[in-house]
Amino acid sequence: MSMLASQVIKGDIRSIARLISLVENNDSTAIDPMKELHRFTGKAHVIGVTGVMGSGKSSLIYELAKTYRKQKKTVGIIAIDPSSPFSGGALLGDRIRMTDLSTNKGVFIRSMGTRGMLGGLTAAVYDVISILDAAGKDIILVETVGIGQDEIDIAKIADTTLVILVPGLGDSVQMIKAGLMEIADIFIVNKADKPGAEQTVAEIESLLDICEKSVRQTPIIKTSAKKKQGISDLIQEIQNHKEYLKTSKQYEMRKRKRYETELYELIRKRLMNYIYDETKLKDRIDNLIDQITKKKLDPHTAADEILHKILK
Amino acid sequence: MSMLASQVIKGDIRSIARLISLVENNDSTAIDPMKELHRFTGKAHVIGVTGVMGSGKSSLIYELAKTYRKQKKTVGIIAIDPSSPFSGGALLGDRIRMTDLSTNKGVFIRSMGTRGMLGGLTAAVYDVISILDAAGKDIILVETVGIGQDEIDIAKIADTTLVILVPGLGDSVQMIKAGLMEIADIFIVNKADKPGAEQTVAEIESLLDICEKSVRQTPIIKTSAKKKQGISDLIQEIQNHKEYLKTSKQYEMRKRKRYETELYELIRKRLMNYIYDETKLKDRIDNLIDQITKKKLDPHTAADEILHKILK
Repeated sequence: MSMLASQVIKGDIRSIARLISLVENNDSTAIDPMKELHRFTGKAHVIGVTGVMGSGKSSLIYELAKTYRKQKKTVGIIAIDPSSPFSGGALLGDRIRMTDLSTNKGVFIRSMGTRGMLGGLTAAVYDVISILDAAGKDIILVETVGIGQDEIDIAKIADTTLVILVPGLGDSVQMIKAGLMEIADIFIVNKADKPGAEQTVAEIESLLDICEKSVRQTPIIKTSAKKKQGISDLIQEIQNHKEYLKTSKQYEMRKRKRYETELYELIRKRLMNYIYDETKLKDRIDNLIDQITKKKLDPHTAADEILHKILK
Repeated sequence: MSMLASQVIKGDIRSIARLISLVENNDSTAIDPMKELHRFTGKAHVIGVTGVMGSGKSSLIYELAKTYRKQKKTVGIIAIDPSSPFSGGALLGDRIRMTDLSTNKGVFIRSMGTRGMLGGLTAAVYDVISILDAAGKDIILVETVGIGQDEIDIAKIADTTLVILVPGLGDSVQMIKAGLMEIADIFIVNKADKPGAEQTVAEIESLLDICEKSVRQTPIIKTSAKKKQGISDLIQEIQNHKEYLKTSKQYEMRKRKRYETELYELIRKRLMNYIYDETKLKDRIDNLIDQITKKKLDPHTAADEILHKILK
């Protein structure tokens, strides 16, 4: 086994960070360690956390992470939300509430951006989850915006998907349109100390009455990250959901679905790397673009030619 | 030329709608008409409209479309925002403000969703723009959320990109992080009748002082879609920007960049169709996923095998 992979398995923070950077930079030296890590994965509980801006995702993740740490569980946090304080640290001295967390030995925080990744973000997210999983993190929290526009389909990645709503923002139609009813394993009404919390709960309940097909009732948990309320209830429900997955056949099905998406994403990413990186191909593509611009050729015919050139 | 392509060029609404549906459904019979249409494109002014939820994008587009119609210009609207009333029509009787617009002969409205498109959305958006362009629409308005999470890179698609902000939501750091300073050809402070509008303008101005590299000053227009204020100023600035593009060398550069992105997106989409549709390949991939799930194989090695199988 490579030095890097074996150090990651030991939980060495610098090696974890290094391999993640290689993955993010689409560096081909990441591939061998990633291959080696696969059989050490599958132990972590991957929790997707999604909700619109202003719903308090980050604060809630912060409280969850702290509580898990008190239970002696190790935690990884992956933030894929550009508006998150987790992912904003690098820029203009964003207020980072997270300092005490990230210096906490059991918590590893990583933010991932969508820019410049040529559509390879999803594949990279899978890799980062696998790295943290192989490194022995018990809990991996993945934060996404998830309002239907997301490149990331969190429900396919996570074992348990938390959907956060807040009083006053509730709009049943929006919820259905954003596909939230389908992906939520647990609904959270955060900022539940604000007026309208009960109404939001009622709205979710009535939507669940209409939409729900599964045997399991989707729980709705009221929290206030600010006042640290409802966090242990939430952690209990997450645990309940994990047990539900294990006792039903859902767990295996989800894992398979996860690997299916991962493999297709990897293939897609590799193919695009190939298209962008092969110098000869690049020259030909540049030439085709010139012809398209001059209307001597159309994009679809050009695409035909390239596919013909590369496929067996 | 195919019947469908020639009918689209004549501006026949049912043919336009039909070809768009074929494109959206990833139907291979769309490819020939799309090839034929290419040389009839390039006349429309493609305007990207982006801004967060609640910034009044849809209302502004509505007012723009109405004003363009008064100027006898034909208009196409493509909405890629799931929260937009343009795109919500199909579901639960969303309140559609747009009824009078969509029955207006010179306006063609189409909403496009991100779900189930297997990452082929960008390629489809290019096709739909080309269809409306070839059909003779003078103005094509493309609405996106554009807060950094978008699958669609609107600035690469549009000739002119409008970024909408509203008083009170302004946060310089967010603007920079979302890449808005780079993509905006024109800033719009909508809901300018609300308190704080001048402050938002000042904030944008000071950011432009720091960030702006180009010779052209990015204009900031105050509008109120509700009170129908600032719309003709905005239309004038859009026209000014078009003339700026034409007199500088930007216009050709942007067109080339547009076709570059389009071609790569098409190649990506075709490759993924190939991967998903080839029955033999699909069987092998299913088998590989089983092995991955059982930890007998890792996803990266599996991807290697598939690439080896399909690439020359």
